[in-house]
Amino acid sequence: MKFVRVFIHTAAIMPLRKLLSIRGMVSQRTCMQLGNRLLHNNVSYTNRTQTCGGLRETDIGKTVQLCGWLQYHRMGGLFLILRDWQGLVQCIVSQEKESLLPLVRDLNYETVVEVHGKVHARPAGQENKNLETGMIEVHVEDLKILNQSIQGLPFDIREFHDVKESLRMEYRYLDLRTKRMQRNLRLRSNMIMKMREFLCNKHGFVDVETPTLFRRTPGGAKEFIVPSRHPGKFYSLPQSPQQFKQLLMVGGIDRYFQVAKCYRDEGAKPERQPEFTQLDIEMSFVEMEGIQFLIEDLLHFSWPEDLEGRPETPFPRLTYQEAMRQYGIDKPDTRFDMTLTDVTKHLLDSGVQQFDRFTSSAESSIVAFRVPKGMDHMSLNDIQTLKEAALKIDDGKNKINIIDVRVGQNGEWKSSISKYLKPDTREKLAAATQLQSGDILFLAAGQRFKHNEILGRLRLECANHLQAKGIQVRDKTKFNFLWVQDFPLFLPKEDGSGLESAHHPFTAPRPDDIDLLNTHPEKVQGQHYDLVLNGNEIGGGSIRIHNADLQRYVLQDILKEDPSELKHLLEALSMGCPPHGGIALGLDRLFACLCNCDTIRDVIAFPKSSDGKDLMSQAPSPVSKADLERYHVEIKTESKK
Amino acid sequence: MKFVRVFIHTAAIMPLRKLLSIRGMVSQRTCMQLGNRLLHNNVSYTNRTQTCGGLRETDIGKTVQLCGWLQYHRMGGLFLILRDWQGLVQCIVSQEKESLLPLVRDLNYETVVEVHGKVHARPAGQENKNLETGMIEVHVEDLKILNQSIQGLPFDIREFHDVKESLRMEYRYLDLRTKRMQRNLRLRSNMIMKMREFLCNKHGFVDVETPTLFRRTPGGAKEFIVPSRHPGKFYSLPQSPQQFKQLLMVGGIDRYFQVAKCYRDEGAKPERQPEFTQLDIEMSFVEMEGIQFLIEDLLHFSWPEDLEGRPETPFPRLTYQEAMRQYGIDKPDTRFDMTLTDVTKHLLDSGVQQFDRFTSSAESSIVAFRVPKGMDHMSLNDIQTLKEAALKIDDGKNKINIIDVRVGQNGEWKSSISKYLKPDTREKLAAATQLQSGDILFLAAGQRFKHNEILGRLRLECANHLQAKGIQVRDKTKFNFLWVQDFPLFLPKEDGSGLESAHHPFTAPRPDDIDLLNTHPEKVQGQHYDLVLNGNEIGGGSIRIHNADLQRYVLQDILKEDPSELKHLLEALSMGCPPHGGIALGLDRLFACLCNCDTIRDVIAFPKSSDGKDLMSQAPSPVSKADLERYHVEIKTESKK
Repeated sequence: MKFVRVFIHTAAIMPLRKLLSIRGMVSQRTCMQLGNRLLHNNVSYTNRTQTCGGLRETDIGKTVQLCGWLQYHRMGGLFLILRDWQGLVQCIVSQEKESLLPLVRDLNYETVVEVHGKVHARPAGQENKNLETGMIEVHVEDLKILNQSIQGLPFDIREFHDVKESLRMEYRYLDLRTKRMQRNLRLRSNMIMKMREFLCNKHGFVDVETPTLFRRTPGGAKEFIVPSRHPGKFYSLPQSPQQFKQLLMVGGIDRYFQVAKCYRDEGAKPERQPEFTQLDIEMSFVEMEGIQFLIEDLLHFSWPEDLEGRPETPFPRLTYQEAMRQYGIDKPDTRFDMTLTDVTKHLLDSGVQQFDRFTSSAESSIVAFRVPKGMDHMSLNDIQTLKEAALKIDDGKNKINIIDVRVGQNGEWKSSISKYLKPDTREKLAAATQLQSGDILFLAAGQRFKHNEILGRLRLECANHLQAKGIQVRDKTKFNFLWVQDFPLFLPKEDGSGLESAHHPFTAPRPDDIDLLNTHPEKVQGQHYDLVLNGNEIGGGSIRIHNADLQRYVLQDILKEDPSELKHLLEALSMGCPPHGGIALGLDRLFACLCNCDTIRDVIAFPKSSDGKDLMSQAPSPVSKADLERYHVEIKTESKK
Repeated sequence: MKFVRVFIHTAAIMPLRKLLSIRGMVSQRTCMQLGNRLLHNNVSYTNRTQTCGGLRETDIGKTVQLCGWLQYHRMGGLFLILRDWQGLVQCIVSQEKESLLPLVRDLNYETVVEVHGKVHARPAGQENKNLETGMIEVHVEDLKILNQSIQGLPFDIREFHDVKESLRMEYRYLDLRTKRMQRNLRLRSNMIMKMREFLCNKHGFVDVETPTLFRRTPGGAKEFIVPSRHPGKFYSLPQSPQQFKQLLMVGGIDRYFQVAKCYRDEGAKPERQPEFTQLDIEMSFVEMEGIQFLIEDLLHFSWPEDLEGRPETPFPRLTYQEAMRQYGIDKPDTRFDMTLTDVTKHLLDSGVQQFDRFTSSAESSIVAFRVPKGMDHMSLNDIQTLKEAALKIDDGKNKINIIDVRVGQNGEWKSSISKYLKPDTREKLAAATQLQSGDILFLAAGQRFKHNEILGRLRLECANHLQAKGIQVRDKTKFNFLWVQDFPLFLPKEDGSGLESAHHPFTAPRPDDIDLLNTHPEKVQGQHYDLVLNGNEIGGGSIRIHNADLQRYVLQDILKEDPSELKHLLEALSMGCPPHGGIALGLDRLFACLCNCDTIRDVIAFPKSSDGKDLMSQAPSPVSKADLERYHVEIKTESKK
């Protein structure tokens, strides 16, 4: 049998275990193991004495046992370069061991090898300063093939090769060997560990695991369902431990956290994963600022040692209104300017007819932003394309028009409105927006904040466009955290049939808005706060409603939902629930920002594609009839519809 | 509106947030918060200065702000006892504040209260040495009701009340307030944190989250299925991250761990939860002893400070054969003796006919164990009941008979076999089992190890019986860890149709058994090891197969499974997979042992009942038609079958 020969060869390094009696101690250990057991490092308890990439000049003279992947060999097997997560090391087959050369020559790249040898300084002049192990080399005394790799892997691990993402996903285990993925996953692990130290060791938080098989949340259309053995009854995979964390507060676990796996079924949506991870936190007897300070200190404390940009605290605060006014979005990227300016008052009697109806009402406005030196980088075509991209978010519903003003090198204005504009209006507009020669100004008018949203989108599109042209708009080493707060508690439903929660129905109103709940619920602001990083919402939280009557009123009278679906929570609030609040940080997004990745898939070990498929195992997949019967379900085929 | 009044009262302690500009800093903070932010303790970032139960003599003279639950009040509201997780504290309404008395008198127990006051020494003679805060009391200067509890809670939090488990589950948030549950959850959190420090900080392990929506494992009848939006296709909730941890090894994450949520659908089974947690570990370039040493050191390191019984290392090792011979079970409770003795050779020509056919074959044996002073605590009826309980595990299949020998105070034997036994056989039997007056001896004969299993079960039943009679058989302060190893790699299938994996198909055979794979696979031992604590299997692991050919051979030729279902894993093994192994510890069971709980439900915040129901929310529950349509399934009703 072929495999037996291969395996025996492979297994030769495994010394035979002796049967050990209950009274006896371990009778046989290699010296290596005994020694390694006590090491507090990356090779303890194993057959290695060092990592490949961890060898330095201080190791010269040491006898080492290395395990790693064959990056490549050269000069007929004389040199072999071994790799592990810490890096590369050069091994040389010494002249006395030349019988090893044919063996090495036959090795496929990515074969797993064990090398015994001695660390030497590289001969003078042969040092490689680009390699951390470049001052040394290992003279091979013995070499074992632990597992031969096949020839012709789907792609090359060495990172200068660009590989299609779907191929990387199909062979994710190969992709994980790259320097980039090793760094991302290890940074993630280390930072989460620091977060735990901060919460658990420094601040007495309790890590509590909450169930993921739970009751369906009312209206939880994004929750996966899990059929149970009870006919017609289903569990639901919750989108967050929201109810449980509140129940823990009721239960006197007054400082809770969890690195929680959450689920959300949004069908095919780019940059969303059906399962994701959040750092979930809840505290009793706390106010909004307490949570905010906690998170600021947490991020400061757990910031990776080797990453620039450890954030200063406290983070800036922005109200929802200000964010919409200045950035046209509730998660502003503040790494660059081009902020929106309200120019309504400057356009009173502007001479431009289409502006007139927007200068008269308090609900409407005219807003503008300037792209400095935009004329150098944007053609008329570009401007048209960028405008169209921005207008997509409104889909023509609000009939909003974006006007561009292109300022030539001599200060001349080119625009569809320039011939109507009175000269003093033009001056006022230029002063208000600090408009200079070579700039482009974009204007839009509308009802609050529809046109702000469109210009906010255009601002981001312009930034992307300029970046693509090689202009550094966003500083990639900057981490701009900020809080957005004072959101409305309720928003009108899309179909106009009433109000829905801006975030979720458990958010407490601001204390001084309590009276408005009865009279003008749409004007009530909530004690909600979002944490924003570089234009990404990476966290959100709130002070919760802790009063059962208030919670019932919000559910029943304002949101018109059936409160009996949340009977257990309402009961809990009535039985001694402390005031409490919390937050959840989206860790996938946070680490994507920190690792400078375009997609969260690059900070997740085994992500799914945008339509929720695992390209490696081909999940989801069909199941057997017996499986379906056990759960009392059958597949609804098209013809049955 | 009633709620508004209540809420305003409640909200009064929340100072109004000012709108904060992005450039400005936080403009308004209470002194309390600023001060508390820097405290590294259990009250940082909150409105509390101390915990109730944490006050000590060293706090005398301090002004404090406490938040807690009203345990009770007495003397017309003069004394109120506040509770939080750290314990109780006595507060006294001082004479100047007697206007507070009617307010306090009206409070229901478990109402959440905030107290401002000053810590005083208790008057001489009024100290309470049974209370950790018993040397002090707090003189109340102000008191706020944070949330009034309803009257007549479903049960009393004070622990001297015995409450039915189903009621505790329905109002789990109340149950969590008890001292017992607080201790259990906090011990769990702290010990897991220490485990993480050991793995991550001391030994360079990487914490990697693996997906829980995965492809169905071949034959994975215990996996929940999750319908997807792709018609007819399902995810599966995996029973462990087994495949992912192996793929991580292939991916060069050479030291991995995860506190992993796992799923297992076993229908109604006591002491099993549909979701459970394991500490999942995998390492490359490691042998069996490396993993064992790691776990021993891990448990030693992370052992709770305030728990007796920190285990000595190394743990004893027992082979599977020895375990079955001595204890009749592969997870022996070694806290007490009554071990099984093979008495076959003493019963050669015993005179007892029914023994003769068991003394002639190497495959059969006669086994006995002694219950010291059994005659004092077991009636004939008891013996009958205990035997029946033990025989249940075999269900009469192997027609095994348990014989008892009752030794009277004068040494006389009472037994169904005593009249046949030759005197010298009797002597040899007594000597071999150290039988004394007043003891009971149990014997059984059969094929290996069927009768051992039955006597092993009887041994446990006898221990339970003696414990119930007040005899301390098991020392509750002892934590007897041990390893059981050298299991067979394959077992005959129940239906006799071939072999199945004793653990799972990824376990590597012992290197010196490789040749047997072709010829006598049933004789091959696997590199599997179980960690046992006090008769509970709390962990299991193995060195894995890292060779693709061997893995394919095991799947296809020995187990007769379709290897294409595991194509992705087989491919991975062929592309440079290091030798590797690992283990998973069942944390729920471990903590149940450490917290001395009869059920794992007492160390889980929100457990499910034995039939998988959440008694608090009534999950699982029906879902809407729209939900079912989204996932292309319909409920199979009885009539359709």
